[in-house]
Amino acid sequence: MVSDAVVLLSGGLDSYTAAAMARAEGFRLCALTIRYGQRHSREIEAARAVAAWLGVARHIELDVNLAAFGGSSLTSETPVPKDRPIDPTEIPSTYVPARNTVFLALALGWAEVVGASDIVIGVNALDYSGYPDCRPEFIAAFEHLASLATAKGVQGTRFRVHAPLQALNKADIIRKGVELGLDYGLTHSCYDPDPRGRPCHRCDSCTLRAAGFAQADIPDPAMAR
Amino acid sequence: MVSDAVVLLSGGLDSYTAAAMARAEGFRLCALTIRYGQRHSREIEAARAVAAWLGVARHIELDVNLAAFGGSSLTSETPVPKDRPIDPTEIPSTYVPARNTVFLALALGWAEVVGASDIVIGVNALDYSGYPDCRPEFIAAFEHLASLATAKGVQGTRFRVHAPLQALNKADIIRKGVELGLDYGLTHSCYDPDPRGRPCHRCDSCTLRAAGFAQADIPDPAMAR
Repeated sequence: MVSDAVVLLSGGLDSYTAAAMARAEGFRLCALTIRYGQRHSREIEAARAVAAWLGVARHIELDVNLAAFGGSSLTSETPVPKDRPIDPTEIPSTYVPARNTVFLALALGWAEVVGASDIVIGVNALDYSGYPDCRPEFIAAFEHLASLATAKGVQGTRFRVHAPLQALNKADIIRKGVELGLDYGLTHSCYDPDPRGRPCHRCDSCTLRAAGFAQADIPDPAMAR
Repeated sequence: MVSDAVVLLSGGLDSYTAAAMARAEGFRLCALTIRYGQRHSREIEAARAVAAWLGVARHIELDVNLAAFGGSSLTSETPVPKDRPIDPTEIPSTYVPARNTVFLALALGWAEVVGASDIVIGVNALDYSGYPDCRPEFIAAFEHLASLATAKGVQGTRFRVHAPLQALNKADIIRKGVELGLDYGLTHSCYDPDPRGRPCHRCDSCTLRAAGFAQADIPDPAMAR
């Protein structure tokens, strides 16, 4: 019997790779994309393209306007940091308070409705340890919470949060994705694209992506378009 | 110095009482009301009236359409159960998958932005043990998660989730609220009001409310309007 997994799909390369790994393990995918008030919609278009490529069973796009709270350069007028070396010990202004907690909570709600006990998220700790809600101890605490929080949990379901990229750096992720035949040209990573949706090549996310492709010695297909 | 607390305010009598108790302890209140796709808007109007009565510092109303997932009689076309005795061991169809996890995650996000380490929720375990996400072990697991999930948590903040009604039944809550001078005529409890917003008097929530006022031997002011 095929099991469903709810996968958080952002349109970036990490969640695409994590989703593809879950699919390769035999899961049928229910993709959840959250419009959380980020400043651009390019990510959402990428999520749709990726969901189509993956052939997901269902795709829900949900609005949750975290910009109502502010507190992040991704959801407010605070400029996104650019042209700087990445300091893995710093929590950057692009951190969105409690974002992954909100995302996993929503994924859990949908998982319970569809009868899935598996949730997939593309966090990776090594690349950017600055985001607290990407750490293994956060994922473990959420799994514990999930089984207490739900009717299915009370009835014995043990929810699993799969974070298959947890121990991989960006180059490893890209190599893994290329092995799986993924088309990274569909993905979008930039925090601050221009009005036509083209990456800035200067924000942390662009910097990490470029370094990852360089380290993997693979050309970034999104650069060729 | 006055501390802020983020309080989840639904428009029902529990969250109103919990908020008033936090205010009496000296907290300045940031009220968060979630339009989660419930079938009626009467609750939201009640939340506004209650927020005004409490004199909250800020009130955010946020849309999170949990009806996109379905799975509850509160967010779908499944009829709300009526005219039945309450079985405290059963998980009713009015359970909304992961709702309190989603709500607390959002409250946590806002709390982090405003610099609050206190979150207030009006869950009460004794009245309706059927909702898994109202139990003390759920609240404790969320507190643990909150400190791992956030930048503030990493920096040493210990988030507290206050559930001051946790050990109270409905009559106790009403007595407590009357002691604090609350106007329960502002609140709305019914799961399935008529088009004019009047309670059905037949759903579980109406039944519990009526029994609570009867047990406390206090007339329900909402019934006089």
